[in-house]
Amino acid sequence: MTQHSHQTAPTQFMDAAGIRFAYRRFGKSGGVPLVFNMHFTGTMDHWDPLVTDGLAATREVILFNNAGISSTSGKVPASVEEMAANAAAFIKALGLKTVDVLGFSIGGFVAQEIALQAPALARRLILVGTGPRGGQDMATLTPEAQRIFGATYEVPDEIWLAVHFTPSAASQAAGREFLKRFRLRTENRDPEVNEAVAPAQLEAIAKWGASNAGSYDYLKVIRQPTLVVNGIDDVIIYSINSFILARHLPDAQLILYPDANHGSQYQYPELFVRHVSTFLDA
Amino acid sequence: MTQHSHQTAPTQFMDAAGIRFAYRRFGKSGGVPLVFNMHFTGTMDHWDPLVTDGLAATREVILFNNAGISSTSGKVPASVEEMAANAAAFIKALGLKTVDVLGFSIGGFVAQEIALQAPALARRLILVGTGPRGGQDMATLTPEAQRIFGATYEVPDEIWLAVHFTPSAASQAAGREFLKRFRLRTENRDPEVNEAVAPAQLEAIAKWGASNAGSYDYLKVIRQPTLVVNGIDDVIIYSINSFILARHLPDAQLILYPDANHGSQYQYPELFVRHVSTFLDA
Repeated sequence: MTQHSHQTAPTQFMDAAGIRFAYRRFGKSGGVPLVFNMHFTGTMDHWDPLVTDGLAATREVILFNNAGISSTSGKVPASVEEMAANAAAFIKALGLKTVDVLGFSIGGFVAQEIALQAPALARRLILVGTGPRGGQDMATLTPEAQRIFGATYEVPDEIWLAVHFTPSAASQAAGREFLKRFRLRTENRDPEVNEAVAPAQLEAIAKWGASNAGSYDYLKVIRQPTLVVNGIDDVIIYSINSFILARHLPDAQLILYPDANHGSQYQYPELFVRHVSTFLDA
Repeated sequence: MTQHSHQTAPTQFMDAAGIRFAYRRFGKSGGVPLVFNMHFTGTMDHWDPLVTDGLAATREVILFNNAGISSTSGKVPASVEEMAANAAAFIKALGLKTVDVLGFSIGGFVAQEIALQAPALARRLILVGTGPRGGQDMATLTPEAQRIFGATYEVPDEIWLAVHFTPSAASQAAGREFLKRFRLRTENRDPEVNEAVAPAQLEAIAKWGASNAGSYDYLKVIRQPTLVVNGIDDVIIYSINSFILARHLPDAQLILYPDANHGSQYQYPELFVRHVSTFLDA
């Protein structure tokens, strides 16, 4: 049975690990739900309805705000490990034994940590616009990311045109279509994150990104079938990090989209839904 | 109308550029045909029927032997550029104005050169298990390729287990299934290539693989939508070269398959057919 959609799903709440988690749950129930983990400073409203509803046509989709984000209570922890522990506690509190886990950017770090901490909980992983612990140029924000996140934007949402899309005319046009979709939900929209979120997430990102000998060894332990997706021109987490993930994970398929930056799944939403569905149904 | 199959398609001949080209043509006619360019020392019989028939369900498939290979007359030229000129002459002699071009390994070099020499002829490209001019570790055979091609095999065909598949149990099992399919055509099979083929192809490969400053610049000129496919563990042409192709081509999608070597499309034939069909029909 298909219930609700990206626009109509009510925000619900679930207590776990001393946190009141805000979440939305919609789509076709009965199978393995797909849990979405959001990027830096994003909320549930930052997902693309074409992606969430596209995937919800064939499975149940769960969006949530992790600790300290927007409508979820608590504090953003300063490590990816703690973020993953909170996410796993939330998923278990919903009574779910097995889910598929999608993570975008820092959400992709969290997804990897969920697989490490609770391997039985995660059936399959989808890692989008992300990288491994200690990946290339991940110890600090890239020069491009520093410029993009340091700039001011007359229309604040338009920062995502620079983060998620390339400068090409085609990519920017796709970005403007994404922004229209992204603004469609007007009722019960999530509040923007508060000023404590970015510093804590940046601290977590810096620890995760710090390179050490054997940085990639942990990837051999993640046995879940994994789909790694990115744009070929990601300037936020360089695309080579997606290649590194696929090289070191035991069972990962890699898909990189042309003329696409960090948010390639918002540039090619239908193709992304098709690739993800093919992967999850295999 | 669907006509013939991998097993039943007769070998036909077409004269062009002073060469008598052997080819087979089958599948659903009426659209843009897909022309296959074969790997080092391979003939038309080295394609996987699951791949060719899978794609022939929705389009016309053309297999052929380039100059000097098996049942085609002439001499193998010692450059990729001449191989591509011969291939383009053959395609035009068939009366075709536009085709999609698939190339595997050295066939992928030929496909890129066809796009450069005859851009209007090639609508879309599929580059499988291949790399760019002057790619990483492409100036000579890789150490793994030297070992694999230098060894002797009790069952000669089993060389392809080492070339196309990884050492994992799952990949080797897939390889044995491939070998069964590969041997299915027993009537009108192509003769094996003669002893002049490998040296000429190796000379062409060495020239193509030699690295120079700006080796990748030519890729910006290839405007065709391109699908780059490989295994994540290709030891014949290292997988990083597929990443480099996708980075430098203006419009390339990259798909790398898990636990797969040079012949990933033979390890995941159904998934490959699905990905290629999605790409060609976009």
